[in-house]
Order: sequence, then structure tokens, then C-alpha cells
Amino acid sequence: MAIPHYQLLTHITKFQTNLSTSSRRTKSNFTVRMSLKEDAPSLAIVGVTGAVGQEFLQVLSDRDFPYKSIKMLASKKSAGKKQVFEDKEYVIEELKDESFDGVDIALFSAGGSISKKFGPIAVNRGSIVIDNSSAFRMDDNVPLVIPEVNPDAMSHIKLYSGKGALIANPNCSTIICLMAATPIHRHSKVIRMVVSTYQAASGAGAAAMEELKLQTHEVLEGKPLTCNIFKEQYAFNLFSHNAPILPNGYNEEEMKLVKETRKIWNDHNVKVTATCIRVPVMRAHAESVNLQLEKPLDEDTAREILGKAAGVFIIDDRVSNNFPTPLKVSNKDDVAVGRIRQDLSQDGKHGLDIFVCGDQIRKGAALNAIQIAELLL
Amino acid sequence: MAIPHYQLLTHITKFQTNLSTSSRRTKSNFTVRMSLKEDAPSLAIVGVTGAVGQEFLQVLSDRDFPYKSIKMLASKKSAGKKQVFEDKEYVIEELKDESFDGVDIALFSAGGSISKKFGPIAVNRGSIVIDNSSAFRMDDNVPLVIPEVNPDAMSHIKLYSGKGALIANPNCSTIICLMAATPIHRHSKVIRMVVSTYQAASGAGAAAMEELKLQTHEVLEGKPLTCNIFKEQYAFNLFSHNAPILPNGYNEEEMKLVKETRKIWNDHNVKVTATCIRVPVMRAHAESVNLQLEKPLDEDTAREILGKAAGVFIIDDRVSNNFPTPLKVSNKDDVAVGRIRQDLSQDGKHGLDIFVCGDQIRKGAALNAIQIAELLL
Repeated sequence: MAIPHYQLLTHITKFQTNLSTSSRRTKSNFTVRMSLKEDAPSLAIVGVTGAVGQEFLQVLSDRDFPYKSIKMLASKKSAGKKQVFEDKEYVIEELKDESFDGVDIALFSAGGSISKKFGPIAVNRGSIVIDNSSAFRMDDNVPLVIPEVNPDAMSHIKLYSGKGALIANPNCSTIICLMAATPIHRHSKVIRMVVSTYQAASGAGAAAMEELKLQTHEVLEGKPLTCNIFKEQYAFNLFSHNAPILPNGYNEEEMKLVKETRKIWNDHNVKVTATCIRVPVMRAHAESVNLQLEKPLDEDTAREILGKAAGVFIIDDRVSNNFPTPLKVSNKDDVAVGRIRQDLSQDGKHGLDIFVCGDQIRKGAALNAIQIAELLL
Repeated sequence: MAIPHYQLLTHITKFQTNLSTSSRRTKSNFTVRMSLKEDAPSLAIVGVTGAVGQEFLQVLSDRDFPYKSIKMLASKKSAGKKQVFEDKEYVIEELKDESFDGVDIALFSAGGSISKKFGPIAVNRGSIVIDNSSAFRMDDNVPLVIPEVNPDAMSHIKLYSGKGALIANPNCSTIICLMAATPIHRHSKVIRMVVSTYQAASGAGAAAMEELKLQTHEVLEGKPLTCNIFKEQYAFNLFSHNAPILPNGYNEEEMKLVKETRKIWNDHNVKVTATCIRVPVMRAHAESVNLQLEKPLDEDTAREILGKAAGVFIIDDRVSNNFPTPLKVSNKDDVAVGRIRQDLSQDGKHGLDIFVCGDQIRKGAALNAIQIAELLL
């Protein structure tokens, strides 16, 4: 297969970019791009103009995800705009019922109400929907999947079977937490988990990231503040996650951690409490996680287990005080774990404290969804 | 007593300022300033040029703390500079052994090594030292005091007795946490506490606050970053507290919470674990605190207990998602508590989650020290 000149150029650029983002798949400069091919699935991206929608494209390209065609879908407002992807220009189409005709895999990230309306329509037309919203996550018939954790939950769903299906992408905080907690759980059984989050602006979308930037300018310049996305000052401040509070006093974001953990681990006895806080950081979440374990585990074994875990890397240098930070994982695929230590407040090595950081847009959303799609191939 | 014109003017300014800082003591516009008087103690402030040193002055003035004289002490570098306090100009003096002659109360906030060297000297010369550093906190002979929590620990120390003494101010994170946890502890006995902190720049001093501001400018303008105080980017990022890591994997800041809680509560069985994180916020700390209780406690009773606690105010409006934030407590005396809820992960109402915010410079340092001094009056 001849390589068109423009593809080769892109490829070189990508290779060079990879030098500075080491956790992305690096490839030889001379690999032939195989992603656009006839025997590959037809894709659709719902919500392509959003922060996660754009990251879907980035991740598809980074991972050379094979596709025969790709539909760029968004609201009426964005219809007609152009979207360049792998050197080809696409016209963004308005999301409609018939958008899914002939689509094998539809990646949704346009909010819960769009998923609730169009997810079932896509399934009826034979598409496998990978949904980034919370709309179907707790539906018993919908697998909730982190590929490194519970790929078996979706093993009954087959591409090209003619049957549509829904697969839910967990919430970002859950994915990032469980990437680190699961290997420990498999070894020593987590019976209780106390999580405090430090969540980035990106979880509230591209507009929230812009607002944080704008507000920071305004604070530094002593100007009146723009508060469109959040009702209070975000720059140089932090606040309880803006999700609605439920009758039990937890907010919806916190209850996602409680409920999704049980479903993903298929363990309805695991006890989880969480306090979710938004901090003025752009695109990566941090989480302080305290684990209570059924079987004792010493911290060296914990470090060894985490060192071998897929999709996890350790930054835990006590001498130089080098630990995970949001910036160290921004634009990275893998979740960083550090501050791994025996919890002093629990006897007999039944407790562990860890600090986890993961890119909210990437592993917390787009990458996880595309890894789900890869399981279908 | 006639009020000098300049004092009246200051007083009016202060009164107006108080309008916007409601938790400070508001006073009638016509109250006579009583703070500078002959039968009051002689004060010295060690480290007057620092963030906490400056706040000592602010709090002394806000609370009309009575004093006969006040010495402004700092390093040789600052000696000779001017310091205005309550309309009087003082010359900053270099800290020396003889600085403490005739000083009744010395407020120290110039770092641990200065406290270690000059604290005992001041005590030998008859001063009561209230030390904001960690130098003497765990010394069995030194009371570690939060006035609302354990004033009795210093009841043997008497002003004008001719005998010097040391009293330690707890670490900021401990003070802020225990202001909220103690009323609960008194009612239901806290047996274990899991704390995750969100700590402001101010904890590392005025230069750290300046660096955060400068770095934020630099990030927004795409300029190279200034990293003098912290070794990594602070703007739009967060990182594990920069205190040295101990052999058990905890950093010194975290161990302060573990050990100081035991000493202040005089309860050597209370189990505490903590993860201390610095966030890009200026001057108030936040803490996510999970409590495990010996006796069951429902969240309504918890809210009632906290509502009556001295130095604590509740911001816990679930309907409008209004909870404590660092900005809501900045420049305020009291610690705010919210997100008060029964911990789902503990059975039988034996668990509680709370979110606490307190001004790090004020209640976390200067105010608490001056409240200790007030106990001596």
C-alpha cells in the first residue's frame, strides 16, 4: 500500500509528538497508517465539538483505531462546520435518528439527555453505543466497563452481529480511582474505601476550562468575575462538586463512586464514601484514597502489585518528594499512583493510603471509551 | 480619657472594614480604644515581617488586645525598617538574646530553628513564649493549645508570675480540623479520623503566595515559570505537601495531624491518617474529614452540636449547593463546616463526613496564638 505524502507527514509529526508524551504508544517512523480501511467498523461520534468529543478524535488517531468511515455528529448549532481528522475534512452533521444507519460503533459524549434520547435509537438501528454519560451506567442490562478491570462484563457484545447494544463508560472519578484500587482489591479485597477528590475544570466541559482561565485573568487584573458555568469564584478557590445533592447528603458525583465501584467490581458489599471537590486545575483529577483491606498487605507488596498493573505507573520518590500531580498525567494515557503507604490508623497492615492522578478527558473519558471499542475488534 | 484624633480616624476606618468582614468583632464607632495601656503586658513579635507576623499585628488590633509596649523583632536583614502599628511607627529591631528583657508575652513565628534557639532564651528572661513553629509542640512539658478545645492545658501558666514558659500553637491543619472534630468528639468519641487536606500557599509563607501569583501570570502569558519556593509548577496544579517524608511514608505535615490530635485531645488511642496536598489557593485551607465514632450520632444532632460550637459556623445548604470554600473563610476568624452527612460506608450511624475550611494565617496561626495570649490576661 502506497503511503500518501500527507499521511507520512502527519505520521512524522505524530512520532515527534510522542517523544514528549512517553506514555502514548510510540511507533516507528516508517509504520504504515492502517486506520482507514475497508474491513474496519463505521464510526460515529456524538458530541464531536465538546472537550471529550475532540479527545475521541485525538485518541482514535493516537491509537490507529481502524475505521471504514466516521460520522461527526453534533447539535444543529454546529452542523455544517468543518472538522479535520487525519488530514481529511469532514462536515459536522446534525444528530438525527437516521444518523446511525450503517454505524457499527457510536461514541457518545453529548450529555445524559442526548444519550437517553438517541442511545436507544442507535441501538435499534444496530449500532453498539459506547456512552460517556451517566444515563445508562446503573442499568442492569448495560455493562459498565473499565477495560483493565472488567472486560468480561461486555464479552457477550459482538461487533457485526447485526444487534445493537449499549456499553457505559464509568464516571471519570470512578475510572481513575479503580485503576489503582482494583489491583489492590484483587490481592487483598478492599472492604471499605474513603475517597476525597481534587477534580479539574475539564469534568464540566471545555467552557468550564475557559471560565477558569478567564476568571484567573480577571482576579489577577482586579476585574469583575465571569461566573457563567459555576456560581462562585473558581480561580484561586475550590468548592464542593457542583452536582446536585441527594437526600442522603451526598452529591451525585460522590454517589457515582459509591455505586459504580460496586457494579464494576461486582461486589455489592464494598463500602465506599466520597467527598468530591473541584479545584482550579485544568484537565486531570487527583484522588486521595484510603483503603481498608480484608487481608493484610504490606506497602512493598502494594507497590509491586501496582507496578505490574496495566494502565498504571508509579511516581513515589520519597527522597526527592516526587509524587503524582495533575500536570504529570495531563495528556497521558496512564494513571499515576504514589504516596503508597501503610495506613497508621489501621492495625495489622489492613490499611493503605494512596494518591492517584489521571487525565480526566483521556483515561477518565475518551481513552476508556476507545479502549472499550478496541475490545470489540 | 480623650481620644487622640488619629486614633478615632483609624477606628472609623476599622469599623467600615468590619462591615465587609462580618465574623471579626464589630464595635461601636464610639468605643474608646483601650489596647495601649500601662497595666497591660509588654509584647514582642518575633518574625514580624512574615505573613503570620503581619497577621499578629492585624489580630492584636482587631481584638483590641491590651499592651503596654510592643517590640517588633526580625532578622538582621529587616532591622532598621519601619513598622506602623495602630498609628504609631516602630523601628524593627534585630532579634537578640536581650530582646526579651522586660517582655511579658513573646509571639514567635520565624520558623523552627529561630524558636529552638531563642524560645528558651526568652523563657529564661521571664517571657511567656507563644510559639507558632513545630519546635516544641510534642514536648511533654509544653502545652499545645487550641483555646476552644483545651484551654486547661495551660492553666498553670500565669502572667506576671516572674516565670517564663513555652506554649505551642498547633499546626494550621490540626487547628482547623479539630475546631470541627472536637465538638463531635466530645459527644460521640472519635476513634478514627481519615483526613485529606487542600492546603493554601500561605502555609509556606508570604513568598509562596507571591510565587503562586507570579507563576499564574507566567502560565497565562506562556512565559517560563519561576519555581523558587516549590520545585514544581503550582499554578493550575496541586502536589503532595512539600514537607519531608518520614520513614513511615507520611510527610511531616501529615504526622502533625496524627500526633497533635492525640496530644490536644489527651487521647493516645485516637487513630488518625492524613494525606496533605497543596492546592493553588491563597490563604485558607480546606479539609475533607471522615470520622469513625464510638457512639452513634445522627447528622442532625451533629449539625446541632457544630452549630453551638465556639469559633465554628455552618455553611451547609444542600438545596443551593452552598458549602464552605477557602474564599468564604479568608480573613475570617471562624472555621466553616459543611457537607455534614452520615457516612454511608459505616453501619449504625457510627460514621460522619464533614468538609471544613479555615483561614490558615488567621485561625490556623495568628488568631489562635493571640487567643492563647488572651487566656493569660
